[in-house]
Amino acid sequence: MKLYSYWRSSAAYRVRIALNLKQLSFETIPVHLLKDGGQQHSSAYQALNPAELVPTLVDEQGSLSQSLAIIEYLDETYPEPRLLPQEPFARAKVRALALDIACDLHPLNNLRVLQYLTGELALDEAQKLRWIQHWLTLGFNALEQKLQQTAGQYCYGDEVSLADLCLVPQVYNALRFKLDLAAYPTISRVNHNCLQLAAFALAAPEQQVDAQV
Amino acid sequence: MKLYSYWRSSAAYRVRIALNLKQLSFETIPVHLLKDGGQQHSSAYQALNPAELVPTLVDEQGSLSQSLAIIEYLDETYPEPRLLPQEPFARAKVRALALDIACDLHPLNNLRVLQYLTGELALDEAQKLRWIQHWLTLGFNALEQKLQQTAGQYCYGDEVSLADLCLVPQVYNALRFKLDLAAYPTISRVNHNCLQLAAFALAAPEQQVDAQV
Repeated sequence: MKLYSYWRSSAAYRVRIALNLKQLSFETIPVHLLKDGGQQHSSAYQALNPAELVPTLVDEQGSLSQSLAIIEYLDETYPEPRLLPQEPFARAKVRALALDIACDLHPLNNLRVLQYLTGELALDEAQKLRWIQHWLTLGFNALEQKLQQTAGQYCYGDEVSLADLCLVPQVYNALRFKLDLAAYPTISRVNHNCLQLAAFALAAPEQQVDAQV
Repeated sequence: MKLYSYWRSSAAYRVRIALNLKQLSFETIPVHLLKDGGQQHSSAYQALNPAELVPTLVDEQGSLSQSLAIIEYLDETYPEPRLLPQEPFARAKVRALALDIACDLHPLNNLRVLQYLTGELALDEAQKLRWIQHWLTLGFNALEQKLQQTAGQYCYGDEVSLADLCLVPQVYNALRFKLDLAAYPTISRVNHNCLQLAAFALAAPEQQVDAQV
């Protein structure tokens, strides 16, 4: 399998964790989101991923986009360890936590949005940071409240799930933008527990072949 | 079942279509997103849905948030008619189309974002409309390209799927904001085909008990 990835992309980071948890070997193909005006906009990559976003997974069946769709595909194809509980209501709770991050939090602070804010809208750095912190704070407040109901060692009880695969990259992202995590003890605890696992640690941005540290 | 809904919410609209397709009876509980400073921010609703967003589905097992998690739950619990293909790769393609809309398109033009643009950032109406059209155009360009590969009568072949449940509300939303659909023949065709089905037609915003037309 080939994963078109960028070291700091939250969405690619989620898929890397899933691949590691399932012990699947894959080749990373770096797509530099800032170099050459954004390599994700190249015509070769656009043909693979019309939305010009990372990640894209390519296997013998073809190419897949959207991190959560890719992870569910991996989970259905390589069921061990499973990333969703078996019972439908519990599955829905886990998926909702993942979507809280993937739909309502991450897209608002994504690179292309920040580029629009500082480009088209000519916001200064302070305004950009306020935007980022606004959505992070709203999202983390809601997540903390939900996780207080559902978390054990991980986001949903004591088994790693799809929700953790979204949480850890989002916390990484929040720390980059200096969000103070003191108000989020449950998020912090789960994040810490996940990072003890090699599958998460090895998926970290700094561990990637294209990392610039 | 109870569905906390707002007539014009795209996310609630998706769930209404799913409930109708599966012929499940439900009670609509209107949450007015603009009245009383936004009824989604009331403490009663916040306890049910910490992110203060619609929809929320409540059944005998409890409350669920996030439209896509709710729809997958309904699909697992009431499998007929199924909203995802059976084969994993095809399921992933359908989920990716749904997520293209639910993650990368809809959240950027959601009410709370537009309120931030005109409030905190003091954008005028023309700037707000440019923001909306920018993300709609990017998203629809990518979708049209993908649907040209996958669509038959509906988004993915000739069976209604989760992707259609996201597409139709997104097209409704785009038309509200005057997006010209001439460049999107496949999107337009699929949208038209879906709206011929009673499950879609009856889920339309104007058909809801809380519609203000």
